[in-house]
Amino acid sequence: MRVCLAQINPTVGDLEGNCQLILDGIAKAKSLKADLVLFPELALSGYPPDDFLLLSDFTKAIDEYLEKIVEASEGISVVVGTPKMNPQGRHLKLCNSAAIIHDRTLIGLQDKSLLPTYDVFDELRYFEPACKNFVWNLCGKKIGVTICEDIWYHTPMVRDAAYHRDPVEDLEEQFPDLVINLSASPFRPGRSQERIETCKGVSKTLKCPVLLCNQVGGNDSLIFDGYSMAVNENAELINLAKGFEEDFLTVDLSYPSEEISHDVDQTEELRKALVLGIRDYFHKLGFSKACLGISGGIDSAVVAALATEALGKENVLGILMPSRYNPESGIEDAKQLVDNLGIDHRMISIEKPFQCYLDLLEPQFEGKQQDATEENLQARIRGMILMAFSNKFGYIVLSTGNKSELATGFATLYGDTVGGLAVISDVTKMNVYALAESYNAEEEVIPQNIIEKPPSAELREGQLDSDSLPDYDVIDTVVRAYVEEHMCPQAIADKFGYSIDLVEDLIKRIHRNEYKRRQMAPGLRVSSRAFTIGRRFPIVQKWV
Amino acid sequence: MRVCLAQINPTVGDLEGNCQLILDGIAKAKSLKADLVLFPELALSGYPPDDFLLLSDFTKAIDEYLEKIVEASEGISVVVGTPKMNPQGRHLKLCNSAAIIHDRTLIGLQDKSLLPTYDVFDELRYFEPACKNFVWNLCGKKIGVTICEDIWYHTPMVRDAAYHRDPVEDLEEQFPDLVINLSASPFRPGRSQERIETCKGVSKTLKCPVLLCNQVGGNDSLIFDGYSMAVNENAELINLAKGFEEDFLTVDLSYPSEEISHDVDQTEELRKALVLGIRDYFHKLGFSKACLGISGGIDSAVVAALATEALGKENVLGILMPSRYNPESGIEDAKQLVDNLGIDHRMISIEKPFQCYLDLLEPQFEGKQQDATEENLQARIRGMILMAFSNKFGYIVLSTGNKSELATGFATLYGDTVGGLAVISDVTKMNVYALAESYNAEEEVIPQNIIEKPPSAELREGQLDSDSLPDYDVIDTVVRAYVEEHMCPQAIADKFGYSIDLVEDLIKRIHRNEYKRRQMAPGLRVSSRAFTIGRRFPIVQKWV
Repeated sequence: MRVCLAQINPTVGDLEGNCQLILDGIAKAKSLKADLVLFPELALSGYPPDDFLLLSDFTKAIDEYLEKIVEASEGISVVVGTPKMNPQGRHLKLCNSAAIIHDRTLIGLQDKSLLPTYDVFDELRYFEPACKNFVWNLCGKKIGVTICEDIWYHTPMVRDAAYHRDPVEDLEEQFPDLVINLSASPFRPGRSQERIETCKGVSKTLKCPVLLCNQVGGNDSLIFDGYSMAVNENAELINLAKGFEEDFLTVDLSYPSEEISHDVDQTEELRKALVLGIRDYFHKLGFSKACLGISGGIDSAVVAALATEALGKENVLGILMPSRYNPESGIEDAKQLVDNLGIDHRMISIEKPFQCYLDLLEPQFEGKQQDATEENLQARIRGMILMAFSNKFGYIVLSTGNKSELATGFATLYGDTVGGLAVISDVTKMNVYALAESYNAEEEVIPQNIIEKPPSAELREGQLDSDSLPDYDVIDTVVRAYVEEHMCPQAIADKFGYSIDLVEDLIKRIHRNEYKRRQMAPGLRVSSRAFTIGRRFPIVQKWV
Repeated sequence: MRVCLAQINPTVGDLEGNCQLILDGIAKAKSLKADLVLFPELALSGYPPDDFLLLSDFTKAIDEYLEKIVEASEGISVVVGTPKMNPQGRHLKLCNSAAIIHDRTLIGLQDKSLLPTYDVFDELRYFEPACKNFVWNLCGKKIGVTICEDIWYHTPMVRDAAYHRDPVEDLEEQFPDLVINLSASPFRPGRSQERIETCKGVSKTLKCPVLLCNQVGGNDSLIFDGYSMAVNENAELINLAKGFEEDFLTVDLSYPSEEISHDVDQTEELRKALVLGIRDYFHKLGFSKACLGISGGIDSAVVAALATEALGKENVLGILMPSRYNPESGIEDAKQLVDNLGIDHRMISIEKPFQCYLDLLEPQFEGKQQDATEENLQARIRGMILMAFSNKFGYIVLSTGNKSELATGFATLYGDTVGGLAVISDVTKMNVYALAESYNAEEEVIPQNIIEKPPSAELREGQLDSDSLPDYDVIDTVVRAYVEEHMCPQAIADKFGYSIDLVEDLIKRIHRNEYKRRQMAPGLRVSSRAFTIGRRFPIVQKWV
């Protein structure tokens, strides 16, 4: 039996385009003489379709496109993920379904049983769960059909939810010959290995092969890494699609297969994820050009490098906007960076508008000391210049704040936070350095000075981040423990040997700056818990 | 039997403060010789507690405070809403519970059955539903205990969800003497009447009195209107707490009671809701002072009036920031407004910074026509000045965009959208006018000129909103139909007699401007579907 796994890159709501990707996949599978072709979870709508699922003309159109897919399945079996009206009366209107199709007939629908409603997932907002996962007779085999989370509760690797039922146990009593899983499983560090372990666990229990077909590509903040796979009946990984790009995997289940391994470099994966996230955000929106402020610091340098890799050097504009507080050496570093990247740049001093605002506000601020107000003015003038370029020429502005800065609020709202996409908002400072080193692995792309100089916002004379913040490795550790792991302050202090005051101060900063993050551009999510998606804390609160 | 309904205003996460409100309520009920005192849903944590529920030290502290409440219940019965650890193994960790307490003993917990997970509600993200609603023996009566949504599926008034079970049917077979409902039911137009109808429906079925105790006050975007109530066994409303403020209702169930009526003026309610929303946002955050740009237009005039009512005239600063495009008459209107309101004001011409930016960017924009870039510069300069006042003096900036503008994207990101609170972001333009009329009911607060002049952003010579937008009554109708009612474009065109092109163009605008709204300040939610909370659409999409 030959099965194709079509690792496609659908766009949310692009029913016409996604349907075409599916029809192309069916045609290709036919040309390869496959018996069965698989597509990802909700491939027809793209994942996540969000509140489009609440619009009746959207769900009606889904049905019409599904009809086309059924029509195209002559002589082949197809299993494709799609939202589907739920025929049951008093329940939710939709199911997250696998349409099981053979030779121009819709055999049936296997609905998803386990509907993640945590972190970035809101599936119970839209879908009614299945009561059972069934084995379907297809291509002369008994095939267990599952959708994403359905197999994750078996190992168990689900940390944030508890379900009443393990669908793999449903399948166990039905003795399947093969289990397939349609996924839209987003990237995070180590996730591809966990996905492999999950499939192996299912294979171990059911003693049959497991095929997982995952979505690839970026949709808003979420990046899907692909890595569709085949695990054989001995729980060995025997085939793995590419990560971070479209792929088409063909698996011959009748032939003996050799185990393969999957090793990844975490920084390399992070880089690929961000590049894919930028590229799809731009291209799916119909934009090609990015601009960003180049400060001479590490964050903007890394974002410039990522954007150049994602969009091409001809499509990235770096804008240097020095003030009275930027040392000449930093400007030289910035120029060296844009030269190394081969991107175009502009140099626009913010001195005149800065002085203009100081003069304008002087009578208003009489008797008041200089403070963060004047620092923020500089950052906001830069934001305004970037937005003027965006308005005039159609660039999307890239915002360059990292996760550690956004945690501590070390950023100016409407200043360095402006932009259409917050590229590294889910990357801690230490990982920003790791990305810089990765770009410099073969030759110096990011000038060594930029990597080595102590971090500074350069908004007043001689300012250093370390004047007002703990070391970034400490910040990063607390952010990971508190934001990603939900550890208590005392547990964090105990585990890492920090004073409880330091930990509590950082956690207070995190909550005090919720209002800034609420107004940020969407950020690419590359950790197990990002600030800009999947984390919901109030601004008005008195717990912290 | 005497029951008190403590309509309190808890703050999210303020366990100490909320516990004190509850202890005060118990003491007051005792002094009134009540047998039973009720508090709202999740009164101890405040509603909605969001992801604080995922923090183990938070849920642990909840248990400790609940202990204090139990200790304080000597000689009285108490039913109070609180999150509670779920003792069941494989299920979600928490329940949304009513703690049923009598005379220093926690009798038991009635968990909520129907967990809304639509619009602004995410309860299945945190809570495990109850399997059944029980009747509890308390004060010699059989009391059916329900939490908010539990009684809404009976009438049925729930439009956005479908449940497997109606908890009122559970109670029917247990013949309760009384049903109580702890609520955290947010305001929207007509909601208080719907709440009354819901209680009457339950009373009709169960032939017993229904007491509903609702939260009051603002928490971030949500405004809870209170109106706790008693409905007797004949489905008559016999007692109603105040709307939009704390109240303490005492109901004697043993005495005969007369039916009362509840009539509201929708504009009056809207005004009260917004005033409460502003006041609680500021005071719960520990702020007292607001500033805002006064343009001479209707939106900023109404926001200034609302802020003055909410915070007091001594706490509101209006900043007039005229440009070359603002006619003298508009500046006079603005001055008249701040005079009428009795608020302080500043006048700061944006001419110098505007010219400064034009000069700075001229070499960059050579050969390019003037366009929205130059308009946005003006709006952004104003935003920067407002933020400088915020930074220097501790004002929270009020953002003044209305729902119709935000729908059509007729607002400058980082310009007129800046602010800590978007006061009228859920108020359509026509309702902004209605609010203005309401302020002028007794004397002219908002100068008639401001109400009568055609709307204009005044960012270029002779600009009028009607140059680029349909009439606001058309926009408002489409926004309500599409955003609030999820109607299809064709159905909207048919129902209101608009051309399909006009409707589709407006809907395209709504989706194209998702990126702007994503970066807005939190907005007060006063409709059945706001842009800034409870509506989840992707930026990258190809459906519309």
